[in-house]
Amino acid sequence: MSYWYSVSAPQDNIAVSTRIRLARNINGIPFPSKMSPEQFKTVNEAVRKAILESSTPFAKTLKYIAMENIPEIERFAMVERHIISHRFASNCQNRAIIISEDESICIMLGEEDHIRVQVLLAGLQFEKAYDIADHIDSLLCGGLDLAFDERIGFLTECPTNLGTGLRSSVMLHLPLIESHGEMSGLADSISKIGLTIRGMYGEGTKALASLYQVSNQITLGISEKNAIDNLKIIASQLIQKEQGYREQLNRIRLEDRCMRSLGVLKNARILTSSEMMSRLSDIKLGLSLGLLECRALPIKLIVEGQPYMLMRKYGEMSPDERDIERANMIRNLL
Amino acid sequence: MSYWYSVSAPQDNIAVSTRIRLARNINGIPFPSKMSPEQFKTVNEAVRKAILESSTPFAKTLKYIAMENIPEIERFAMVERHIISHRFASNCQNRAIIISEDESICIMLGEEDHIRVQVLLAGLQFEKAYDIADHIDSLLCGGLDLAFDERIGFLTECPTNLGTGLRSSVMLHLPLIESHGEMSGLADSISKIGLTIRGMYGEGTKALASLYQVSNQITLGISEKNAIDNLKIIASQLIQKEQGYREQLNRIRLEDRCMRSLGVLKNARILTSSEMMSRLSDIKLGLSLGLLECRALPIKLIVEGQPYMLMRKYGEMSPDERDIERANMIRNLL
Repeated sequence: MSYWYSVSAPQDNIAVSTRIRLARNINGIPFPSKMSPEQFKTVNEAVRKAILESSTPFAKTLKYIAMENIPEIERFAMVERHIISHRFASNCQNRAIIISEDESICIMLGEEDHIRVQVLLAGLQFEKAYDIADHIDSLLCGGLDLAFDERIGFLTECPTNLGTGLRSSVMLHLPLIESHGEMSGLADSISKIGLTIRGMYGEGTKALASLYQVSNQITLGISEKNAIDNLKIIASQLIQKEQGYREQLNRIRLEDRCMRSLGVLKNARILTSSEMMSRLSDIKLGLSLGLLECRALPIKLIVEGQPYMLMRKYGEMSPDERDIERANMIRNLL
Repeated sequence: MSYWYSVSAPQDNIAVSTRIRLARNINGIPFPSKMSPEQFKTVNEAVRKAILESSTPFAKTLKYIAMENIPEIERFAMVERHIISHRFASNCQNRAIIISEDESICIMLGEEDHIRVQVLLAGLQFEKAYDIADHIDSLLCGGLDLAFDERIGFLTECPTNLGTGLRSSVMLHLPLIESHGEMSGLADSISKIGLTIRGMYGEGTKALASLYQVSNQITLGISEKNAIDNLKIIASQLIQKEQGYREQLNRIRLEDRCMRSLGVLKNARILTSSEMMSRLSDIKLGLSLGLLECRALPIKLIVEGQPYMLMRKYGEMSPDERDIERANMIRNLL
């Protein structure tokens, strides 16, 4: 199956993935934090119908799953695949998802808002991701009485989502901007124009593997197109800056760094998640510069080497056991 | 050619090499620090005759070479192979050596004393090394009027060599005693019984690759046999202690450490001499425990990766160029 992390995609040397998220709510029902079990059922069923029973052929690719039917390890493995949020995986009673087989589409029912539509694609694919999200949105608008205010736009629990309810983001691999020590300065300037940069697993987390998620924060008084365009401009500036550094570098020093990481990954018997990520970041950089060859995609290994992803495959383990299993898995895949 | 560093030898898992050195001087000629060019010629010629023109078949394996005929890079490469001393390589005017093809025997003429006989063998071979040194000594005693005092023994420039003029030493690979932080405590206790422990390249140098040279210091009032026996006892205690730690260790952690080092050596593009030594120390340890396989002998690589040994093979280079050439050489040999 072609998951976002397991395929090569347009411009994915630096831009690893593109994500579009829409927040929607149904009129006359409180937000999920105040909902009764009955109201959850009502919302889940209404959305299920609006999407899965619509006449669009699109609906056939999607599946409705009650979150309580998904085992805990798999729920947190979905968080590691960026399919659902951590809070949704932790607090899943009465909740459900509608998900496509390749996981590029996942609709969370009962996260912060009634409906959170996520489209997640490999590489740089804003148009395609937005088209899919927009198509789902039209199914929702057609089948449901959505909470919408003429002046404000879509109503959401958190005021930061009011208006378009849209959040677009792109995950960028920026090892050289990072090693030039420029990330925190860039984060400051970018925040002044309504965008944020965060580490790979979202808000408050440290960047691992030099993967940074850049997203637009403004949803009010701006069109979907303008919001996405702003993000595209900033993303392309960051990509150019990173590319520039890659062209200036001392080739032998970088080859040394990348090949050492490959040597460690091919030989280590114990591998923590954070070392794995930093080594695979080197491999990704080396691949993009033609400095090395590698049988597996680094981003795929990064995702599959996460703790719950490992336990989903090899069974429950202590952190020490995982470090050994992770080293085995990566060694075999390389 | 089977040099001491390029062959497998008895008990060389821990004991890397055995060395016997004798200091001798000729009656009636000042010590080398005060010798005239004429006197150097006299000494060189007398020793050459006593050894090379003797009737022993042994003499045929030896060659006399004036130090001035050896280029500087090769002289310091000989220091790195432990064949001659650093001071002898630096100050070689009028000096000469008598050396065997496999370099196990090297007689320096005009080092601190007129004659310094060295026998250097791989592994633990005190008897064999002493037998060879003793045979050479009998040629010297037979052909020369050596400075000898009935009460004291052989006379030498430095009083620490008076008596037997013998120094015996063994180079031990002690990575686990070292990582238990016990080396300096051991060095203190051993010094109390007239022995010393030093880093690989002798006095005042830091131990690299966890290689330690243990030698007897007492030459006065003790027989050659007793001096060597004392060293053998201490060496065997150190070997047992190291072996004990090797049996207790956490196998997976050690395998991880050794395999990572192998991965780095097989992939690095830049390799300093000190990193090479520490990585090859891991490989040597891993080999001795059957944790890994390796096409080359670690000690051979350690010696051949030294700066002058590299330049002897690949021509004169800056330190940065050497680090690249060293990485290439090691990668190819592994």
